[in-house]
Parts: sequence; C-alpha cells; structure tokens
Amino acid sequence: MKFGLFHSVQWPEGSDQRQRYREGLEEAIHAEEVGFESVWLTEHHFSRHGIVSDSLNVLSHLAARTTNLRLGTAVAVLPFHDPVRLAEAAATVDVLSNGRLDFGVGRGYQWGEFHGFGVPMEERADRFEESIDLIQRSWDAREPFAHEGRFWRYGDIDPQPKPVQRPRPPIWVATDSEEGLRRCAEEDWGVMLPQGRSMDVVGEQVGRYRKVLAEAGKPFNAEKILLARALYVAPSDEQAWADAGDAYIRFRELATKLAASPQGKQLAHNPFDHDSLRDAVVFGGPETCLSMLRRIEELGIQQVIFFVHFGGLAHEKIMASMDRFAAEVVPLLRKAGTATAR
Amino acid sequence: MKFGLFHSVQWPEGSDQRQRYREGLEEAIHAEEVGFESVWLTEHHFSRHGIVSDSLNVLSHLAARTTNLRLGTAVAVLPFHDPVRLAEAAATVDVLSNGRLDFGVGRGYQWGEFHGFGVPMEERADRFEESIDLIQRSWDAREPFAHEGRFWRYGDIDPQPKPVQRPRPPIWVATDSEEGLRRCAEEDWGVMLPQGRSMDVVGEQVGRYRKVLAEAGKPFNAEKILLARALYVAPSDEQAWADAGDAYIRFRELATKLAASPQGKQLAHNPFDHDSLRDAVVFGGPETCLSMLRRIEELGIQQVIFFVHFGGLAHEKIMASMDRFAAEVVPLLRKAGTATAR
Repeated sequence: MKFGLFHSVQWPEGSDQRQRYREGLEEAIHAEEVGFESVWLTEHHFSRHGIVSDSLNVLSHLAARTTNLRLGTAVAVLPFHDPVRLAEAAATVDVLSNGRLDFGVGRGYQWGEFHGFGVPMEERADRFEESIDLIQRSWDAREPFAHEGRFWRYGDIDPQPKPVQRPRPPIWVATDSEEGLRRCAEEDWGVMLPQGRSMDVVGEQVGRYRKVLAEAGKPFNAEKILLARALYVAPSDEQAWADAGDAYIRFRELATKLAASPQGKQLAHNPFDHDSLRDAVVFGGPETCLSMLRRIEELGIQQVIFFVHFGGLAHEKIMASMDRFAAEVVPLLRKAGTATAR
Repeated sequence: MKFGLFHSVQWPEGSDQRQRYREGLEEAIHAEEVGFESVWLTEHHFSRHGIVSDSLNVLSHLAARTTNLRLGTAVAVLPFHDPVRLAEAAATVDVLSNGRLDFGVGRGYQWGEFHGFGVPMEERADRFEESIDLIQRSWDAREPFAHEGRFWRYGDIDPQPKPVQRPRPPIWVATDSEEGLRRCAEEDWGVMLPQGRSMDVVGEQVGRYRKVLAEAGKPFNAEKILLARALYVAPSDEQAWADAGDAYIRFRELATKLAASPQGKQLAHNPFDHDSLRDAVVFGGPETCLSMLRRIEELGIQQVIFFVHFGGLAHEKIMASMDRFAAEVVPLLRKAGTATAR
C-alpha cells in the first residue's frame, strides 16, 4: 500500500493563524520524512475549517521544502476559479516541483463558500464540466484558442507555463456517485473517495466504480483510486480515542454545519455524512490500525491518504502519531509483504 | 540606495520553459546572495514575454528558498483577478514568508491579455479601483462582509488567511500619471516608476509626484518611490552593449508590440515607450553605471529595482553582471557614503 497526507490547516477559536500554518507545514514536510508518498491540500474559504484558501500557492512553497513528495490538491474547487488562471497556477506548481503535481478537483459542497463567491450551487456540476475542459485545453494548447462557454469566455489564449508532466498532470476527482464515477472511468481520471463513510459504504462505492469501469470496458486499476481516512495512532485504542476522539468529532461537526445552508439544509453531497464514526477512521493502537488497513486493502484499494490535523489536536500529538504509524504500523504491514516500501 | 530585482521569465523561441524557469529562479535567489533587498515579479499571460503567470505562487516558492529577501509583485494586474482570490493569495505569501510581501498592483497595458481574459480595456481603471478596495477590505476584515459592486459581488465573506504585516502589506502602484500619482499620495501607497523612460522623463515624473504630494499636504518620502531600470554591468561600456544591447532592444520591441492592438494601436499607456534607449538603462562599465545611479539619486530616488533578464541574454552573463554590480559598482557608491549597506 501507498500512503499520503490529506491535509488542511484548521484555525480553532483562540489560536494563532501563523502558528497553525507553521505547524501544518511541518506536518506536511514530516510526511515525506516518515515515508509518505504525497501530501494533498484541501481548499476552503471564509471559515475556521481550513485556512488554506490558495492550495496551489502553498504547494509551490512545499515544492521547495520537500524532495520527492507528490503535491496534490484535494480538491481544487472548480466552480470558484477562473479555469485559465487555475490551469496557469497548477502548471506553475508542476514546473516548480519538476513534475510532482497531482491535480485533484471537485464541485464543492459548502453552502457558505458558494454564497460567498456568489455562485449558485445548482450550477456546480455544469461549471465543473466547462472548467475541467478548459483546464485541459489550456495545458494541451500549442496554438492560441478561443472559448465561448456558458460561464467563461476567452479570446485567443495560449496559457503559460505548460505543465512538465506529459501528457498532463494526473487528474483526480472527488466523487462517489455513479455519474461522477462514470465520468472518471471514461476520462481515465483517478477517483478520490471521501473520509467520512464506514467501510461498508466504501465497499459499495468501490463496487459502483467497478461496475461503471466494466460498462466502459476498462479494467480496475488500483493506481486510479484512493481513499481518505482520518488517522490517529496511539499506544492503545483507549489512548487513541482519549487523545483524538473529541477533536475529530468536533472537526466533523463543523464540517457538517458548514456544508449546510443557514436553514440547516444539505444542498450538496456532504462528504462528512457518517453512518459510523468508529468504522470510518483509522484510530487506535498499531494492531487496530493494521486490521483496518487490511480491510481497506481487501477492497482493492492500495492508496490511502490520511487526515491527521483535526484542529483541536496538538501538533506534537499529530507528529507523534505519524511517527508511530511509520514505526509501528507500516512494519507490521511489510512483514506480511503487503506494503510497498519506498 | 537600496536595490532589488525586477524580474520575469522570458521564453524566447526555441528555448525550454523549464530551463528558463530554473534559471530565472536562480537569478532571483542570487539577488539575495549579492545583497539585493528584494525581488519583484511581473505577471504576464499568453505570450513569450513573461511566462510567470501566477507571480504570487512563484513568490511562495521563493519564500522557502530565500531568507530575508522582500517578495514583490510588479505588478499584479488587478483587472484580471477575482479580487478576493487575489487577496487570499497575497496574504498566503505574506504568511509563508513571515511578512515579506510587497504588493505591487497595476491596471495592465497589454492588449492581448485583456482580449484573452475578455476584459474591455476601457474598464481597467474602474476595475482597479473596485479591486484594490476589496483586497484591502479582505485583509482588514475581522467580521464577514458583503459586497455588491459593478464588477464583483460577494456574500458574507471573511477571507483567510490574514496577512502577517500590520496594518497591511505595503501597497505599490505602477503609475506615472498625475491622477495615478495623486491616488498614491492620498492613500500612502508606494509609487513604482517604469523602466522605459529617459532620465529627463523620470525627472518630470518625480516632479509631478512631488507636486501632488504637496497638494495633498504630505512630505516626500524616499521609502515610497522606486524606479525600475534595466541593468547590465560589464568590464567596459563597449562590452556591455556588445553583450546585452541587442537582447534588450528585442525585449523592448516585443513588449511594445504586445502592448498594442493587432492594428498597432496603443490603447493604454505602454511602459516601454522610450524616448532615449541609452539614457533609460544602467548599462556599461562600473563607472558608467555609478554615474547613472548618482543621477537617479539626485532626483531623490533611493530605491532602484533592476531588470536583468532580457530573454536573449545568457543566464551566465546575467549572473556575472549581478556579481559585477555587487563587487564593482556598490563599493564605489559606498565609498562615497551614499549607499545603505545591508
């Protein structure tokens, strides 16, 4: 299995933004030190739930402070961006990192973000489609092109720089609907499954993906699917929940609240809807974490990105949990010959 | 006097983008090594004249690769950006660099860029005003605010992160018109004078600025004005022009062409209009460069940012010219007690 960090910078009441950024960056850099292959940054706006608003900008900073770590967006929220400016920014990360960008994209789900940017939520799917098409054209173009679309228009543009990776940086889409998964299968985009669902639901998501792949006549490829999970490793299960349980629950509660309208209505799919908290996370002592990873692997998933930064959990505890994962969980996996060592 | 780098990445026909970026970044990092105080990146789109399209993204990368260097945009072209997204990006640079951002802004002048983004050139001044107001509100806000303007609207936003510098990162405006200079005087924004004009014209620009300052009842402050100049230092004047003259002339010709419409009409102020090439640059042997710096200083200007990367000039020659400036020109200035050593 391969592991990465699914990362944000949370800003709890009373905490200092600068310190939160400093710690969040240290955790991302530590991901490389403990043998993770990648870091994936969330993009959020206008709230304490994620103060990385320009994830590509932060990735270019991390490109200079890491060596081989893959640098991902998870996700760039397409309805909020000028697609050509976003294509330029993403290509810039790819140039500055010498080809380490993974470009994860999504449609967005937080009511307050759509309200803030003045973008109607019902346009999210159509904006996504026009945007991802424009981004790819911007990367591919070798001659100027014009575009007259529903949401954006451009005249005779040939955006620069071009990405380093050929034919393009890998594109990943946060989705678990049949329609979204079918688009991924058709386009050979990777699939990012959210962190909030129990393993039973993840099993259904993978089954749905296998079905649309079969319908599209394409094989299942473990390189094209990754699963997000919250991670906290402690000496024992009891210690893990005592350290991190409340912080993670508060994090999910805030996310669920932000997804909804002020009237409490969920207008888009909320990735944090949860049917079972304990069955949706990799929390516990090393043996418990190992057994959860084996369940994930049994579904055919070989790539897991771990969310470790819950806001209310101290930086030192996060770093120690990452160290413990590398020192005590990965060796157990490797012993059984199932982990891909770096 | 204080010196900085006014920098871009040019992409001449037949050259490799990645190599151009690599070299451009090395030059920026070298600026700190030779005692420059700052680097200022241009923003351009859709042409070989500048393939840094996301200058704030590149500044966050440079934040990690430099220590004390101030990091500037010169300029962020406000009519092409969602102001709130730009405020977020600029604040991110300020956070990642621990307060080293200088935020230079302008109205834009290249016809092809306006055409590309579908922005009417006649809206450039009005867009600038609405945008700079929104950027400052975004930085200052401690409560959500809404905005209904001519070009942009937002609902209940409190953009994050906030800049580190208080009350705000310094704002600089590329302008030399009486109206533009008056806005700077009123708002205490810095003034960036363009690289293309002869010293006589620079004298008129400074005179105009002193006049509007006096009318606004404000003193002249050398910390609030900087001048851009092309720089090339060689052992002799002859060698300087032989090495770099053609490359710089071609650079200016391309800039002038890009400023105009396809019919050759200049629709905005073109910063490269030049009345005298030799009198607008700091080119030559050390003594010639010194005497040009003295003329600049006599106008009351204490900050010069040097444009060194002309596209057609080899990276090694650029690096050597920067070294020679530090080793042979600055000591002459210091000897006379006029340079501010770092």
